[in-house]
Amino acid sequence: MTLTLKTKNYYIMSNFDQIVELIADDLSAIEAKLTEHTASEYTFVDMAVQHVVEGGGKRLRPILVVLSAKVCDYEGSDAHTLAAVVELIHVASLVHDDVLDEAAIRRGRETLQTKWGNKVAVLVGDYLHARVLSMLVARRSDDPAMAILADTTQAMCEGEVIHAYKSGDFDISEDEYLKIISFKTGKLIAASCTLGAHLGTTEAQQIEALTVYGQQIGTAFQIVDDLLDFTEDSDKLGKDAFGDLREGKLTFPIIYARTVCNDSEKQMLEKMLHPDTDETEAIAFVESLFQSYGVEPHCLKVAQGYADRAKAALAIFPETPARTALSELADYVVSRES
Amino acid sequence: MTLTLKTKNYYIMSNFDQIVELIADDLSAIEAKLTEHTASEYTFVDMAVQHVVEGGGKRLRPILVVLSAKVCDYEGSDAHTLAAVVELIHVASLVHDDVLDEAAIRRGRETLQTKWGNKVAVLVGDYLHARVLSMLVARRSDDPAMAILADTTQAMCEGEVIHAYKSGDFDISEDEYLKIISFKTGKLIAASCTLGAHLGTTEAQQIEALTVYGQQIGTAFQIVDDLLDFTEDSDKLGKDAFGDLREGKLTFPIIYARTVCNDSEKQMLEKMLHPDTDETEAIAFVESLFQSYGVEPHCLKVAQGYADRAKAALAIFPETPARTALSELADYVVSRES
Repeated sequence: MTLTLKTKNYYIMSNFDQIVELIADDLSAIEAKLTEHTASEYTFVDMAVQHVVEGGGKRLRPILVVLSAKVCDYEGSDAHTLAAVVELIHVASLVHDDVLDEAAIRRGRETLQTKWGNKVAVLVGDYLHARVLSMLVARRSDDPAMAILADTTQAMCEGEVIHAYKSGDFDISEDEYLKIISFKTGKLIAASCTLGAHLGTTEAQQIEALTVYGQQIGTAFQIVDDLLDFTEDSDKLGKDAFGDLREGKLTFPIIYARTVCNDSEKQMLEKMLHPDTDETEAIAFVESLFQSYGVEPHCLKVAQGYADRAKAALAIFPETPARTALSELADYVVSRES
Repeated sequence: MTLTLKTKNYYIMSNFDQIVELIADDLSAIEAKLTEHTASEYTFVDMAVQHVVEGGGKRLRPILVVLSAKVCDYEGSDAHTLAAVVELIHVASLVHDDVLDEAAIRRGRETLQTKWGNKVAVLVGDYLHARVLSMLVARRSDDPAMAILADTTQAMCEGEVIHAYKSGDFDISEDEYLKIISFKTGKLIAASCTLGAHLGTTEAQQIEALTVYGQQIGTAFQIVDDLLDFTEDSDKLGKDAFGDLREGKLTFPIIYARTVCNDSEKQMLEKMLHPDTDETEAIAFVESLFQSYGVEPHCLKVAQGYADRAKAALAIFPETPARTALSELADYVVSRES
């Protein structure tokens, strides 16, 4: 039995909290870089941008840059700049996702379009890309970060466009879906690790190991993200629960359920994803279907498989606190509740 | 009297057509670069992207890069790459503008959101930015193009965000509006000229002259763009006429009319910009107001003032076909009908 008491004076930290504590100084430096590189002399622009940049989130990608750099013996401040770059690319993609999904809440805060309308939201996303460009052009041209991030942002968009185009296709296969998420989500998470690695080493084997680690946890992360939409409440998620279902989005749990349920359930499921279907009815049907076919444990098992492969890729590195942290982070990606 | 006959066999070319003919080889090379640098291995992404990239338009910014380079004695192919970069930045901004304005038609073609929905449109804009990033990171880091374009994309977004934020402010001053358009439109047009200049010269005076030329025609261009929304029909514009008015956008002609009309007309004008107002009534009122106060000739006069200052900035260059073309282009920006 594990004793977990959360009071003001005494609590046992989760692995994630411990990781955050391990690199607390780095994370503060990254927050400072984020503010510095997104500031605008125009008050309103600055306010709208800081609303999303300061909007919390776990800073998973910055943590990955820092830990990947440390695993390769790099401790300098360029990790903070690159961490800020990947986080800004991520925030920009969230801002545009929220416009497209008409999301009202993100990370427990009102979204930009709720506060100031779609126009401001699309433009703030573009502004963040412009600032990323500024941060990148200030770098040396032989810096591998440039090409890595150019490829990454392109792949993210391709993944998103294909996902948007395929969104009405109830027959999308699990493999097709996994490929899409490896682009949409996996590329930037993998790039975070690759960038960190490049700071500390030129050894291809080490860089490749961290890239593989990132790709694997990226896929695990998205599968769990898809699952949490069905299993967690809005408060914990910091956004509306059942959002994907409401939009009729095909995500990993639905794609799996579709392949294991019987024909009449499959027809019903397709109907439930239609925008005209009553929301309460759709949620009740999907929850009961997930229960019957053990969709939640299946998704967690698949995600844990990716996390285990991620951890295995770390074996070539000496055992350091940073390697342990990366290993625990892989498990956290699966066990997290938001 | 000028004889202008447009038949299959015989016509007198406009100045703009002559300019296009003068640099026809450059323009073909630029089209090839545009296709090359936006191609995606994913069929649907490729189709959606080519729909907007090939979607015509005057290629004003590429023309400016090429002519500015030629005025500074540069004739190489890097002008084509930079011309493609600025055009892609421009197309990306149009794609996002059209999403925000819910435009159905642009350059005589269906917009992306009409064909495939908002999501694809926002993402294609992001994809184009990602491709621009790829093109830029392939350059030498001491290349001034990088910093110029990073500053430009940031300023464009700032201008757009401020414009979106100010869109409900009926009392925006002419000066404030001119500053916004110098950011939104002027920066990229000026950057096109600056980039061309840098290819051929390191002389600050020449670079500055072309930057000033670009800033001035940029403002002229936007004032005329604002005017054409009221004076040309949808066929010529390649987009819906009275689009700005329908959206209640405050543009240069409205801001000028507001300052010269009487108080009751001013109140009526404000009412006409409200989204609930009957469109036909609003158009009739604004047309009659513009007639009474000579808004069209006033706007053209202001625009011509900018064009004249642009031409004056060219005086330091020797008289070459490229300088003549730039000079005529300044007049064309004012006299164009679409």
